[in-house]
Amino acid sequence: MSDPTRRRLHLNAFLMEAGHHEAAWRLPHSNPRADFDLRHWIELAQLAESAKFDSLFLADGPALIGTGEFRPPGQLEPLTLLTALSQATSRIGLIATVSSTYNEPYNLARRLASVDHVSGGRAGWNIVTSAGADEAANFGLVNRPDHAERYARADEFLHIAKALWDSWESEAVVADKTTGRYADPARLHRPDHRGTYFSVAGPLNVERPPQGYPLLVQAGSSEDGKDFAARHAEAIFTAHQTYERAAGFYADIKARTRAAGRDPDGVIVLPGIVPYIGSTEEEARALAKEFDELRVPEYGLRQLAAVFETEPSVFELDAPLPDFILARPKLEGTQSRSDLIIELAVREKLTVRQIISRLGGGRGHFEFIGTPEQVADTIIAWFEGGAADGFNIMAPALPSGLESFIEHVLPILRGKGLFREEYKGTTLREHYGLPVPPNQFHPEATRVSGG
Amino acid sequence: MSDPTRRRLHLNAFLMEAGHHEAAWRLPHSNPRADFDLRHWIELAQLAESAKFDSLFLADGPALIGTGEFRPPGQLEPLTLLTALSQATSRIGLIATVSSTYNEPYNLARRLASVDHVSGGRAGWNIVTSAGADEAANFGLVNRPDHAERYARADEFLHIAKALWDSWESEAVVADKTTGRYADPARLHRPDHRGTYFSVAGPLNVERPPQGYPLLVQAGSSEDGKDFAARHAEAIFTAHQTYERAAGFYADIKARTRAAGRDPDGVIVLPGIVPYIGSTEEEARALAKEFDELRVPEYGLRQLAAVFETEPSVFELDAPLPDFILARPKLEGTQSRSDLIIELAVREKLTVRQIISRLGGGRGHFEFIGTPEQVADTIIAWFEGGAADGFNIMAPALPSGLESFIEHVLPILRGKGLFREEYKGTTLREHYGLPVPPNQFHPEATRVSGG
Ligand SMILES: Cc1cc2nc3c(=O)[nH]c(=O)nc-3n(C[C@H](O)[C@H](O)[C@H](O)COP(=O)(O)O)c2cc1C
Ligand SMILES: Cc1cc2nc3c(=O)[nH]c(=O)nc-3n(C[C@H](O)[C@H](O)[C@H](O)COP(=O)(O)O)c2cc1C
Repeated sequence: MSDPTRRRLHLNAFLMEAGHHEAAWRLPHSNPRADFDLRHWIELAQLAESAKFDSLFLADGPALIGTGEFRPPGQLEPLTLLTALSQATSRIGLIATVSSTYNEPYNLARRLASVDHVSGGRAGWNIVTSAGADEAANFGLVNRPDHAERYARADEFLHIAKALWDSWESEAVVADKTTGRYADPARLHRPDHRGTYFSVAGPLNVERPPQGYPLLVQAGSSEDGKDFAARHAEAIFTAHQTYERAAGFYADIKARTRAAGRDPDGVIVLPGIVPYIGSTEEEARALAKEFDELRVPEYGLRQLAAVFETEPSVFELDAPLPDFILARPKLEGTQSRSDLIIELAVREKLTVRQIISRLGGGRGHFEFIGTPEQVADTIIAWFEGGAADGFNIMAPALPSGLESFIEHVLPILRGKGLFREEYKGTTLREHYGLPVPPNQFHPEATRVSGG
Repeated sequence: MSDPTRRRLHLNAFLMEAGHHEAAWRLPHSNPRADFDLRHWIELAQLAESAKFDSLFLADGPALIGTGEFRPPGQLEPLTLLTALSQATSRIGLIATVSSTYNEPYNLARRLASVDHVSGGRAGWNIVTSAGADEAANFGLVNRPDHAERYARADEFLHIAKALWDSWESEAVVADKTTGRYADPARLHRPDHRGTYFSVAGPLNVERPPQGYPLLVQAGSSEDGKDFAARHAEAIFTAHQTYERAAGFYADIKARTRAAGRDPDGVIVLPGIVPYIGSTEEEARALAKEFDELRVPEYGLRQLAAVFETEPSVFELDAPLPDFILARPKLEGTQSRSDLIIELAVREKLTVRQIISRLGGGRGHFEFIGTPEQVADTIIAWFEGGAADGFNIMAPALPSGLESFIEHVLPILRGKGLFREEYKGTTLREHYGLPVPPNQFHPEATRVSGG
């Protein structure tokens, strides 16, 4: 049961104000002002840490979400929130989404390095390219950069960020009080990058972070997104409606990673799951129904329209998706998510009303309604069947859904030796079994962290 | 002694790794790796809070400081560090320097609002325009923007940031669980700014911060800098070598503020003081000498060259400043600091060797060597004589110099009823006696904080 060579599940707690279900804030026990209430986040972080989750994760974008009419439209800036949470926790990893399209490499590399320092090596970066037109409008862009260009910029961004994180060799600081010599300038490297999107001299003004680089996470599943992931990602968040699609994605990503010259085991694939847990199937279904009845259909229609970059008025609630949506060329925004919704709708022959109900809990992530045993069996089937290295746990309501998962599902996974009883390491990389990357300016000197 | 109408001193603890003196890291008791050691900063923050300082302050710039050869060249990103410190303290204000030249208004307004939320209304922003060429080179600029342009950009930046902080009215969130109505879109305002440097749609995706705006602080003393301060600043950090210069600056700033249509009492002027404290004058002089003997002259020469945007080789240690330096037109970099150094050198007929010794402790800030009574008398003379509303305390070594100030000088100031015994409020604005600014989109509804 505690075979150290045994492959183990990785679990990430994807947090979102009162929960992932769009109507979670309306539940009787929910805190509808959770978004800006630090106590809510501390409670969730400590709960996930007490259950030995690998990490916490916060999604993000630099724009108001929707109009705010039916759901909390804002969020604390995630690196700020995670920095605060780093002081209320000691082991759990802290992964923030930050856009490579609307940030500068020097500033962001520095902030991530700083969070890694103050958290003792627990920072992760979910690298996104920001698909929305609302986001572009907050940065002076009438037309957002197109999909391929956003990923090209992201690639150059990562190249620079890595050079900046490497710019201090581990032996750079001498701090010799006797001679007054502080650092060895020959060990502080100046990347002097000049590229297509950026020119950045360096060195960074922050010492190499404890993890070398923050854990690099990626969450776009388009072709461009998967190629980017194969080059840079160490963990991948992804959304799939079926085991078959998830297994196909998993094989695809591992092959692309190998083709990019990297070890496929160095990329942890984490599909999302939105579990509605009941002690019987009937209870679980009743729980899911309780959420569904709190939805405001107008909200779902607007969300659907936003994904397809159109107006809510093009949809009829009791008809299938209109033909022009099914026939559209690839979108510049969220390619993989729009493809997933079309596929789901066609496969299950859903009306628009049914589609928005199905998207209400997890925006396209896999919803699972069942008993703790059924949830655990599904997780194990995907994990052992080559569709996942772990899961992104997306509780429909928070904290209740996370408590329920911890109390009822985790003991089953632990009973089978599939999930840690205690943290072994202290850094996020250690939880995921990933090494500290070598320093490009001084490769042989890099220490490697434990598993 | 506790007359509530009595004008009181404001004290800000300007923190810097092992201390403000350039050789502080070499002292026997110093932690030479203080810069990236969170425990060092927590110790300082809790020390300043236990003494009831109004605030902590961190300087910053997005570039390595010098070459690192003789002094720690890096620093944790200050908003990140202050966010961590917000969780180890509960009352003291937290002021971070962030550049308006190398940031985007949407991102920075959001981060500052987030820090204000997680700290319970304790965030302050020292707005700087980043004079250095090293900084420009990290953002793709071969030529940094010139002085006037940097301040014009800063002005537009502030205009946008204020509109974003105001974009949520206080009554915007309804959160009606029964109807499913979350926010009132009519109370979420879209600034839709289109200007010379920026186009920003809004609204911000963060609720109006507890303080309305973070405390707005300014630290450039050029003509452009003072005009900017008169329009926007609520606290001003400044460097003066004499009471006369400080009093002139004070009168100038208050007059400009009045001319800009603002209440001069709404701008707190805080000159820096670097105190070397001994129980006798002789002891204080010996302490200052101990620091001075640890300096590496090469470092001071390089710093001097940097301020004048020239090479160290133009200086002769035992000669006065060269004529071409004295005759130069205004610099695009740090105008006020280079003017101050020339004035000091001419007034006191200093050689280069003496200049770099005088700049070693506070880079041009007022160094004062004396007994606790003498330090207190000087502070009171500037405060009561119309040269200061308080001070920026810049301990030459940390924590020892701050401990010494707290233990020996503060009791004298308290004995005269000039400094608080306890915090009265919980926010930074409350400590400085400044109101929450009215919301431009809904002025009458704004609550005003206590004194
Ligand atoms: C679990 C998960 C979380 C995500 N979080 C974000 C996010 O916070 N912000 C964002 O802009 N994109 C996020 N995305 C990624 C977007 O879906 C992705 O950027 C978008 O789909 C465009 O990339 P693609 O066309 O490669 O899929 C997330 C994706 C997944 C699977
Ligand atoms: C106490 C104090 C602290 C300062 N801290 C910074 C700083 O951290 N970063 C920075 O770029 N400028 C800082 N400055 C301001 C610069 O000196 C100022 O931006 C520069 O002098 C250019 O502005 P000026 O020409 O208006 O003086 C500080 C000034 C003072 C008085």
